[in-house]
Amino acid sequence: MAEIVFKGVIPPLVTPFKPSGEIDFEAHRFNLHRWNGQGLAGYLVLGSNSEAASLSESEKLALIEQTAAEARPGHILLAGTGTDSTVETIRLTNEAARCGAHAALLLTPFYYKDALNDEAQINHFQKVADNSIIPVMIYNVPKYTNINLSNRVIATLSRHPNIIGMKDSSGNIAQLVEFQRVADPSFQILVGTASIWYPALVLGVQAGIMALANCAPEVLVRIQHLAESKYMDDAERLYRQWVPVNQAVTATYGVSGLKYACTLRGYQAGAVRSPLQELGEAGKKALQEMLAERADD
Amino acid sequence: MAEIVFKGVIPPLVTPFKPSGEIDFEAHRFNLHRWNGQGLAGYLVLGSNSEAASLSESEKLALIEQTAAEARPGHILLAGTGTDSTVETIRLTNEAARCGAHAALLLTPFYYKDALNDEAQINHFQKVADNSIIPVMIYNVPKYTNINLSNRVIATLSRHPNIIGMKDSSGNIAQLVEFQRVADPSFQILVGTASIWYPALVLGVQAGIMALANCAPEVLVRIQHLAESKYMDDAERLYRQWVPVNQAVTATYGVSGLKYACTLRGYQAGAVRSPLQELGEAGKKALQEMLAERADD
Amino acid sequence: MAEIVFKGVIPPLVTPFKPSGEIDFEAHRFNLHRWNGQGLAGYLVLGSNSEAASLSESEKLALIEQTAAEARPGHILLAGTGTDSTVETIRLTNEAARCGAHAALLLTPFYYKDALNDEAQINHFQKVADNSIIPVMIYNVPKYTNINLSNRVIATLSRHPNIIGMKDSSGNIAQLVEFQRVADPSFQILVGTASIWYPALVLGVQAGIMALANCAPEVLVRIQHLAESKYMDDAERLYRQWVPVNQAVTATYGVSGLKYACTLRGYQAGAVRSPLQELGEAGKKALQEMLAERADD
Amino acid sequence: MAEIVFKGVIPPLVTPFKPSGEIDFEAHRFNLHRWNGQGLAGYLVLGSNSEAASLSESEKLALIEQTAAEARPGHILLAGTGTDSTVETIRLTNEAARCGAHAALLLTPFYYKDALNDEAQINHFQKVADNSIIPVMIYNVPKYTNINLSNRVIATLSRHPNIIGMKDSSGNIAQLVEFQRVADPSFQILVGTASIWYPALVLGVQAGIMALANCAPEVLVRIQHLAESKYMDDAERLYRQWVPVNQAVTATYGVSGLKYACTLRGYQAGAVRSPLQELGEAGKKALQEMLAERADD
Repeated sequence: MAEIVFKGVIPPLVTPFKPSGEIDFEAHRFNLHRWNGQGLAGYLVLGSNSEAASLSESEKLALIEQTAAEARPGHILLAGTGTDSTVETIRLTNEAARCGAHAALLLTPFYYKDALNDEAQINHFQKVADNSIIPVMIYNVPKYTNINLSNRVIATLSRHPNIIGMKDSSGNIAQLVEFQRVADPSFQILVGTASIWYPALVLGVQAGIMALANCAPEVLVRIQHLAESKYMDDAERLYRQWVPVNQAVTATYGVSGLKYACTLRGYQAGAVRSPLQELGEAGKKALQEMLAERADD
Repeated sequence: MAEIVFKGVIPPLVTPFKPSGEIDFEAHRFNLHRWNGQGLAGYLVLGSNSEAASLSESEKLALIEQTAAEARPGHILLAGTGTDSTVETIRLTNEAARCGAHAALLLTPFYYKDALNDEAQINHFQKVADNSIIPVMIYNVPKYTNINLSNRVIATLSRHPNIIGMKDSSGNIAQLVEFQRVADPSFQILVGTASIWYPALVLGVQAGIMALANCAPEVLVRIQHLAESKYMDDAERLYRQWVPVNQAVTATYGVSGLKYACTLRGYQAGAVRSPLQELGEAGKKALQEMLAERADD
Repeated sequence: MAEIVFKGVIPPLVTPFKPSGEIDFEAHRFNLHRWNGQGLAGYLVLGSNSEAASLSESEKLALIEQTAAEARPGHILLAGTGTDSTVETIRLTNEAARCGAHAALLLTPFYYKDALNDEAQINHFQKVADNSIIPVMIYNVPKYTNINLSNRVIATLSRHPNIIGMKDSSGNIAQLVEFQRVADPSFQILVGTASIWYPALVLGVQAGIMALANCAPEVLVRIQHLAESKYMDDAERLYRQWVPVNQAVTATYGVSGLKYACTLRGYQAGAVRSPLQELGEAGKKALQEMLAERADD
Repeated sequence: MAEIVFKGVIPPLVTPFKPSGEIDFEAHRFNLHRWNGQGLAGYLVLGSNSEAASLSESEKLALIEQTAAEARPGHILLAGTGTDSTVETIRLTNEAARCGAHAALLLTPFYYKDALNDEAQINHFQKVADNSIIPVMIYNVPKYTNINLSNRVIATLSRHPNIIGMKDSSGNIAQLVEFQRVADPSFQILVGTASIWYPALVLGVQAGIMALANCAPEVLVRIQHLAESKYMDDAERLYRQWVPVNQAVTATYGVSGLKYACTLRGYQAGAVRSPLQELGEAGKKALQEMLAERADD
């Protein structure tokens, strides 16, 4: 890939597990074949919704390899390889590259959060970017990390030649606009949640890495197409219709809810891995109703 | 007023104090005369930016009276009369009504936050609305209260005949969209921060109560006019230009910064009241530069 | 009072309300007569547990007057008169003094929390102390205010001649020890929660203002007497026995739970005021069981 | 080891790195030889202060092996092997056992914190305990994880035959007392911070895993000996003297500060690993002064 340009919808792929706990690679292939036909721009493996925290390194690399092998040509393959260690992040990122990842999405280090100020974040990302054989992207997700990057960090890092963009999952539109202002014009800011997909498109965002794209990829793709064709009312209407589903499969029910929604919509999402627990009956019922109401759209 | 319809920009008025600490009513009149000419939809007195927490009850009522006397005919006059006591809120709201307020904006009770669940919030607002001689509005401002109302609370309260709308200052677009979905169609949702003014307009919001409207009312009015006239690019450009100023006069420097910005732009904002402290030199310089850069617009 | 020396247990008095909502002054007198016989060191009126946020100013002053009239001679009478306004705090404190309060307990200002740094807190308390006709005390209660004073603030304020002590309700023993280290030796640090009463006594604290002292004053007094008489094991045993009750009437069930526990133990605690809601059945049952288990002690 | 009984002081060992970034095993051996002479009860490797988040798995295992080889006979060797994956935690724990660890200290899973409720925590720890070939302990450290275990979780897990105790690093004495109440009598609760070492000893705690024990082991050992010999005043005095140092090497300056303090006191603590940054000059000066003042003790 000469240069990576993000335009479109990218699901942070769920990882299907067998009831026995192993990765269900067959189910993953099944899903990929289905996702391949949805008009997506690419895939993220090893994101938060992939239960990356529950995968061994060999499982991580196998997932990248299989996804690379099955992904539709032209699809961008991102891998989540950020860790709390600068050296380990470099190592794992380059392993991921060798397995077929086109770029890496790197969680901000967060464990020692009081010590991980602007300086430490800048230093970490620069070191990784300097030593990575593929381009890297910043993953800002305060919900999981309690770290929210500042304008200053984005202004600095966006000018590094090997840091090509970011996923901002804060859901904060004012922050998104500020990041757009301070970043280098070449820096690509992707939205990290479908809860602001339409307003983000209105504000010039070109791509999103969104949990909902696992179970409703065609909806998010259509919102973007409608917006680009200037059918703004239709785009907005469809967006509004799916915000409640997005809240359900993220804030309310988390990964277990997302996987159940995928299953309801014909994907083979499989079980979650401990310490996560399967969705309870009330959650299942709520999702069934939500999706049934939107079945004819 | 037969019915209150919110359309346009409403500043939560700063309260000018003399160096001696008293309210400077002359300065307030001066400001009102100037604001009267800016195309605003109304005024909020006794909001967070009015240093309402530092005003005695007689000062509060005097401010309402004077503002009612000087406001341009047709301007809606809102008063912030919410307290942590249901009975006191009713009493103060009706006092405010007698002094000329058209509607009351009521802070969610928050002191005993662990006990103030959905049930308690619903109960409080219903009691106040039942006993208020003017319409009431809900003021959701997690930044100050650590209370963020749920969809369920808004769904219920929006159906009360004397609760006509809300100011949502969360800055959270997904939440705004959800509130629009669950609320009664007659319920008017106003945005509470200029940091999302343009996206809120895109999403059908008709009015905003925004700190920045104290010092740059004409900018916010113009953004709305541009958006209504479908000059979306111009609206967006102007909005983007002023987001940094808004961040400065709210999140970064607070009320002291807002008052200083008002002073720089020709208003008589006066001093802050203790325990707030005047803006330091660095903050003054930052605001001077920010506003100088935008002087010719 | 020449000089106020705190030694012993002080309840932050609950305020009994009639079902109609008015203060039940007769019940308050009844309670005071009973509390007068429990070996307490004094009373705090208008604290967080007094539902001070729900009282009008005239009610506040009437409560001080009546408590002053009925309190056992020698009991210290504290009044909670802190507000978010420096000027109003001075005025209300001096009103409270005229109604019989011996000293004032002042909440840290907190509404504009981002602006209320060390400097602002020091400035506020110094101004109030300079202008109060009675001694003042600092009330540090992060649970309600999201403000936690620093060593620096305590080091400075503890040296003001009219600031005689503080109530630290953080429950943080390490912080208490640090405050003891940096404060002027004359500064009296009172613990603000029974959940650390025994360890605080071990660490040299001489007095506490504790919610549990409303419903179980004799228990807290006895713990202190046992500790002073060096019956440490007995003091510790009794303390451990009552920690769960304290958690229940503070963190778990709040003021409604505290009032119900008072009622169960023969006080006339009356109703809560809206926006608080009466304790539910599950909470009532839990408290009944807890107190029944401790009935023979 | 037939049964593990915790009594005494255990440092969560810092991991020395060379300027080049590799683990400095020689320095680690040097430190161990010195620590071996301090009267400690054991060692924790791979704790938060060991920069475990920055170590590769092979480095982790090598550290356990070397520590096992050099530790004084009778010293308990704990290894921090908790991860966000139940299966990986089991695997790593058993690897650690094979390398010489006597028991494992397991961080609560925390990445998907909204989903990791009581049920999920109980399930995770039970599964690990069922499958671990060595006893396991719970590591409750809300500062890093934003998870604070409930009484219910401790009541349940403390009754599992292979869960022998916990490190509570919350610093919350009331919580410690509650955990002692609800836990099985055989369950050993260790304190996780020197900031409450003396009060914890007073309350019957027998052991602590405390950062300060890296640089001032003899002080913490002496506090315990003094307390056990009923020289309570001396124990308290020494504790108070070192609380400020403990705050400095934990809350204020973190791991970088702790390592610098170790260096000042003759240990070979080496460099930190990125993303952590070396302590700045102001921090160095503050620690030099603090330790100089306590040099003659």
